[in-house]
Amino acid sequence: MTNRATRRTLLRGGVATAALTAAALPGTAHAHAHTDALPVETRRPGGTGPKIGILLFDGFSVLDPTGPADVLSRLPGATVTMIAEQRGPVRTDTGDVRLVAERSIAEVDRLDVLLVPGGGNRGTIAAMQNQALLDWIRRIHRHTRWTTSVCTGSLVLASAGLLTGRRATTYWASGEYLSTHFDVTYVAERYVRSGKIITAAGVSAGIDMSLYLASLIAGDTVGKAIELAVEYDPRPPFGTGDAAKADPALKELALRLLADSQI
Amino acid sequence: MTNRATRRTLLRGGVATAALTAAALPGTAHAHAHTDALPVETRRPGGTGPKIGILLFDGFSVLDPTGPADVLSRLPGATVTMIAEQRGPVRTDTGDVRLVAERSIAEVDRLDVLLVPGGGNRGTIAAMQNQALLDWIRRIHRHTRWTTSVCTGSLVLASAGLLTGRRATTYWASGEYLSTHFDVTYVAERYVRSGKIITAAGVSAGIDMSLYLASLIAGDTVGKAIELAVEYDPRPPFGTGDAAKADPALKELALRLLADSQI
Repeated sequence: MTNRATRRTLLRGGVATAALTAAALPGTAHAHAHTDALPVETRRPGGTGPKIGILLFDGFSVLDPTGPADVLSRLPGATVTMIAEQRGPVRTDTGDVRLVAERSIAEVDRLDVLLVPGGGNRGTIAAMQNQALLDWIRRIHRHTRWTTSVCTGSLVLASAGLLTGRRATTYWASGEYLSTHFDVTYVAERYVRSGKIITAAGVSAGIDMSLYLASLIAGDTVGKAIELAVEYDPRPPFGTGDAAKADPALKELALRLLADSQI
Repeated sequence: MTNRATRRTLLRGGVATAALTAAALPGTAHAHAHTDALPVETRRPGGTGPKIGILLFDGFSVLDPTGPADVLSRLPGATVTMIAEQRGPVRTDTGDVRLVAERSIAEVDRLDVLLVPGGGNRGTIAAMQNQALLDWIRRIHRHTRWTTSVCTGSLVLASAGLLTGRRATTYWASGEYLSTHFDVTYVAERYVRSGKIITAAGVSAGIDMSLYLASLIAGDTVGKAIELAVEYDPRPPFGTGDAAKADPALKELALRLLADSQI
């Protein structure tokens, strides 16, 4: 009964794909009857918008690519493609979860946006030393509009030589490593833009960075709308996410929990 | 050269899996020599901690399950398993990205934590009407320590009858739908606990909810450490993520961007 009522209610009107939300939003159906009055023309055949590629490698951290993937996929006409050295499932740092790489690096020679996520120590080191990945990153970077990273992904960009002489950020515990081992000025900010390169801090910072990137690509109105679309009104339960304010014991425990969760 | 230096630096000492971060954190190597002094015993063989299962369905939104997966995977000994009606890749609402379901619902009869993500209208409606999924959710729920949802996943829990007479939250634009079609009191909060059921608001709210859940499972110290581990110190670029403060035009655009991005 409920389900029948649901279907009737949800699928009424010409905005079926948005009906679940529209049904609960007074005036939306009317508004959708006047989409030409919207400030942004969003309806485009898929693929006519930005081509966004996310490079996966064995041992990536699952939130690093997926936060930005959800955000950037809402850009008008955008396509988001997971890419790896080989097609197929790619394991996260815990080994529990696998995300599918739909394309191999050999199949991709142009992207509007490249995003390199971070990962555990094992996976990040392997990516930093994988010449095939680094060569591909350099080749793709020549033609991107934006080249971006999340967390320790900036160490991979640095290994490819893309951050030389630049300001960049990374995971809070890797900042000193980034500035010591590469000619990079580490900046402890949520995200850092240097020319067409944007690096984000750890893990969840990819969400903030990708919302900023969305506004660079499609304007502030779209950026603001996507922030609402993903209901990004964060309420961290503990307020302990800023390493600059964390005591050493909590930092030790955070790193230990990460280390013990990773294969 | 850099990579050689990297390997030498990173792999020195007995904390290789944390070395990338430890190398950049003064005193950490020393701290790791005294892990027995840590306030929480984190090192456990995988699988001795909570068994966390995330139910995927065609058309889920990629951040809904992956934010909590990253957070909850850092719990000592935790295993995170992606589950679907059938094993194998499961498409997101945009159709661009696929996450692998490692187990079918027929293969899983006990979980400590069940999480049901939300999705686009098409995928959520199908899940709300899939009796096999709803039966499995009811069966698993009988023995869970915690049954949780993100975004429109609460509509799936409601369809399974789990939210009857309870307070719950959901995606901002689906709150009225939830309270109209089910015997549920919609509460516009980031996450809402009712007994052993915890529902989260839209998409990114799963991160807040799962950090709270982590503290319920392993204590506040671990919750605080995981919040730092995923560097959850959010800085939303626009501050437009709260629907209660959004103007109608922005809500319309947010829903239109979602609708147009979904297959």
